[in-house]
Order: sequence, then structure tokens, then C-alpha cells
Amino acid sequence: MSTYLTILGFNSAIPTINSAPTAQFLEMDERHFLIDCGEGTQVQLRKAKAKFSRINHIFISHLHGDHCFGLPGLIASFRLLGRETPLHIYGPKGIKEILETIFRITETYQGFEVIYHELDKNYSEKIYEDNRVEVFTIPLNHRIYCNGYLFREKPKERHLNMEEIAKYPEIETCDYRNLNLGKDFVLSDGYVLKNEILTKAPSPSVSYAFCSDTRYLESVVPIIENVDVLYHEATFLHDLKEMADYTGHTTALEAAQIAQKAKVGKLILGHFSNRYSDLSVFTDEARAVFPNTFLPKQLEAIEIVAKD
Amino acid sequence: MSTYLTILGFNSAIPTINSAPTAQFLEMDERHFLIDCGEGTQVQLRKAKAKFSRINHIFISHLHGDHCFGLPGLIASFRLLGRETPLHIYGPKGIKEILETIFRITETYQGFEVIYHELDKNYSEKIYEDNRVEVFTIPLNHRIYCNGYLFREKPKERHLNMEEIAKYPEIETCDYRNLNLGKDFVLSDGYVLKNEILTKAPSPSVSYAFCSDTRYLESVVPIIENVDVLYHEATFLHDLKEMADYTGHTTALEAAQIAQKAKVGKLILGHFSNRYSDLSVFTDEARAVFPNTFLPKQLEAIEIVAKD
Repeated sequence: MSTYLTILGFNSAIPTINSAPTAQFLEMDERHFLIDCGEGTQVQLRKAKAKFSRINHIFISHLHGDHCFGLPGLIASFRLLGRETPLHIYGPKGIKEILETIFRITETYQGFEVIYHELDKNYSEKIYEDNRVEVFTIPLNHRIYCNGYLFREKPKERHLNMEEIAKYPEIETCDYRNLNLGKDFVLSDGYVLKNEILTKAPSPSVSYAFCSDTRYLESVVPIIENVDVLYHEATFLHDLKEMADYTGHTTALEAAQIAQKAKVGKLILGHFSNRYSDLSVFTDEARAVFPNTFLPKQLEAIEIVAKD
Repeated sequence: MSTYLTILGFNSAIPTINSAPTAQFLEMDERHFLIDCGEGTQVQLRKAKAKFSRINHIFISHLHGDHCFGLPGLIASFRLLGRETPLHIYGPKGIKEILETIFRITETYQGFEVIYHELDKNYSEKIYEDNRVEVFTIPLNHRIYCNGYLFREKPKERHLNMEEIAKYPEIETCDYRNLNLGKDFVLSDGYVLKNEILTKAPSPSVSYAFCSDTRYLESVVPIIENVDVLYHEATFLHDLKEMADYTGHTTALEAAQIAQKAKVGKLILGHFSNRYSDLSVFTDEARAVFPNTFLPKQLEAIEIVAKD
């Protein structure tokens, strides 16, 4: 039940030979989520040996090409590979019109249902939930309507303390479920065994926040507070703060300030402008404010673990 | 004034790590044409070190994703790179609606004009012409409206035979142009010097035919007769002829038959089904009928020369 993040691409705007536009593959509790889908994402998924066909939920931050132009090809390939499972797509209002126009004119008929969840709110909302995982939007401030996404594991069940349980023959296998859920056990003589004696603390639940293209925006802080890993765009260094504001982006320094204020565990930067060839300048700038800052490694799966 | 063809991708349907979907870059007499534009074409153009920004004319055979899903990203990149030159796009009716829907919703505003030439005819027509080059459609028979394209250099000017010209002081530099154009020269005593004495034959004009997805179709033969190089799809071997017909494709044997009937100089096959790992089976089958058959080499520029 681990959580792994594979950054498939973190380039801004123009794809180049060695760096792909934004896309991330998140495996959380055996759910397989795709976050953004720039041109060429389906090939990046293959290179990462990602479980391609298990993606049932795609989250698109905004409708700029470097974050969504890989969608039509990915969906067409799903069809060619014989997919039958419904596919959920979450993204800004308009995403349905784009994809349905393309599929109508290119006569790409899916053998599976595409379910659109179009977003237009300016407050954070829960858009996905199952028994283990929840996903929330993180409203951002870009040139066009844009959301980040917060992925959060629900609290996990407590682990049985078999050594203690063995001392009470009255406790049977069929009682374990209630113990996992945190309930006390009442012995036949009325004595109450406290759950914390019979069980151990659950594994920590982890969380991941993806903050795609945005200007510096403090309102994201309460939404992403205490997340274990934050990916935040940092298109420019702070000496180009004006350019960042003008184009709707964040500087490395500002991304670090957000990470610090939100007390996140770890910060990964991305979406760097093509003008920078040596990316270490971004971590240099950010670490002065938030030391636990890293550059993304394209195609490498990293485990998301609970922050200390 | 040479002609070079770079095959950027020749894969069918699903892009893979090592093979890109259909796209070709044709440099003919300093014109730079892009033919089809599957997903990832802009990165293939970079890999081929093609003169990216000089592409002013894009020819799309049909609106299946593996032939056009790279267009939105390419156009968005042109814009980001500051393009101002108008871009002409030739393709099936519907291509304008797809692209304009995408650009409207993604707020991708070009700083340059996109001029659409939508095609819907079922006969070959001239769709482009300048002083050196002409382009014609080659109506094909696929599952969806589809055209191949024929690129043809116009007859070139004759070369001056300076050794002969030197014998006649009456011929001045300002007369050269008329000699290039094939005119005789009349001496002041009325004697007519025949042009073929004063000039040498022009360099041969070359031609290239691109036959994208199609069933075996003999009606292309008169259109592409005697072209120097023919690219023809060959998705299957002939033992899967039924599958080829059903899916709207050609077999290697059939592509060779078309090449033979049209008396082309050289045949390049492409668009192979993913089921074949060793592609030499395609040339093996085709060469039995048309020996001068080759496999494409991705990203390698080949010169198109006049057939013998």
C-alpha cells in the first residue's frame, strides 16, 4: 500500500529532445492516477514502464497545450489496446468540448466510456473519493483557469497486536475487524480492553500536492498544509519575478516560501523555463528558504513517505 | 536545388519508445514541407535538426490521430518561438474545426495567420504551386477521407554552354535569361543560333509521392506514374490481405504492384503494424514484384534523385 510518484515530464511550454512537458503518474494505494498529459505522455508512460492500462482517473490542471495535448493520443491508444474500463477525466470546463470535437471529426470511437468531470469553482473541493484515497482541487492563479490537485490517503486501519490478543482467548478471528477499526473489546465479565492495548498505531497516511502553473499564491497554504511531498512549479528565478507575474508563474524562492509556510515534508520544483540550462540554480535559490528542496528526476519512481 | 526527404516517423497507430507515428519533412528546391504530423512530430523535427521554423506548408493526409495529433503542439510551439509567417495547412474538411476549437478553448492565440485549405474532392487536384514546385492530391481509399500528396518540381531552366556562347561576342549577359528559358538567338545577320547549341539540358526535375493509409487502389497509378520516389503504406503482409482490406490498408505485395504499374524509381514502405518486429519481411515480400524497394530509416535525410 505504498505511494509512488513518477514524474514523466517537467518541461515548460516547448517539448525538447530530452525533456517532456508536464505529466506525472501517481500510484497511491493501488490506484493509478495520471496528472496532466502534455504531448508525448503516452510514450513517457511506456518508458517509465508504468501500468498504463490501469489509469482510470486523469487530472488535468489547465488547458494549455503543454499540460493536455497528449490526451487525444493517449485515449486513442487506449481504444486501440481494447480498453473497456470507463475513464474519468477531471479538468477545466471546455475539456469535454475539445476532446469530443476531436473524437467526432477523427472518427475515434472509444469502446469505453469517458466520464468528464468539468471544473469551474474557485474554491477547493473534493472531486474524488474511495475507501482509501481522496482528491481535492487546489485553485491556482495562472493566465487561464487552473487547479492543482491534492491526493491524500485516508487514515489507515490499526495493526493487530497479536502478542496481546493471544492473552485473551475470548477474542476470536471475527473480532479482528472491529479491532482494526479502533474499537475496544468488552470481555464477558464486563471488563473493557482498550483498543490501544490490542492494536498498534496504523501506518501513516501520506499526501501529495501538485501545484501546476500559478503565480505566487498564499491561499494554497491552508489547503496543502503538512503534505508530505509538494510539487510546485518554479518557472523562473526570483530576479525574473516580474516576468513570472506577467506570465502567471512562480519563482523558485516563492515556491520555497509556500513550502515553508505550509510546513510540507519535501518540495520538488519543476516547469523550468527553457532559458536555464543548469537547473541547480533553482535548488540553490529555494534551499535558502526551504532546505528540503529537490529537482525532479524524469521517469524515476520515488516513494512518497510520511514527513517526520 | 536538391530535394531531401526525412522520414520522421513511420509507425502505425500506437506510438512506441523507438518509433514515432507518421510524419515526413520534405525539402524541395528550398521549400520546406511537412507531410502528416503524428503526436511528437515537433520533437522528431528537432532530432532531425530540420529547419523547423521554415515550414510554411503542412499537408495532412487524414484525420486519424497517428497522422495529425502532433499539429496543435507544433503550432503552439511556433507561436512560443515568435513565428510571424503565415502557415498553410492542407487537409480534410474538419481540420479547421478541430484546430480552432482547441485554440479557442486553450487560449492559444497565434501571432501568425493559419490559412486552412480544406479538401473534400475525390479527384486529384493541384493544391499548391509556385515558380518551381507543384503539389497535387492523390485521393486514397481508407476508412476515413484520405489523400496522398504528389510533390513535383517544374521543368528547370537550361544551363548555359559558356564554351559555345564565347564564340559569339554578340551574345551579351542580358541575353542569358532568354537562353536559360530555351529561346534561340538571332545574330545581327539574321542567322538563327539554335538554343540547344548554346545551352545544355537542364537538371532533371524530381518528384515524390506520399501514399498514406489506403486500401490497394489502382486509380493512384496514373497520378503517380514515373515518380522518382514513392512512399506507400504497407501495414500488413499479404497473408493478412483480409485484415488489410477490413482496416483500410495495403499489403507489402500490393504496394509493390502499385510501384511496378506506376513505373516509379524507388519504393519506400512504411506504416507497419506493430505485430511485426522484423521489418525485413516487408521488403522480402515486395522485392519479388518490385526489386527497388526499401525500408524507411527514421530521421535520416535521403536525397531524391531522378530515376534512370
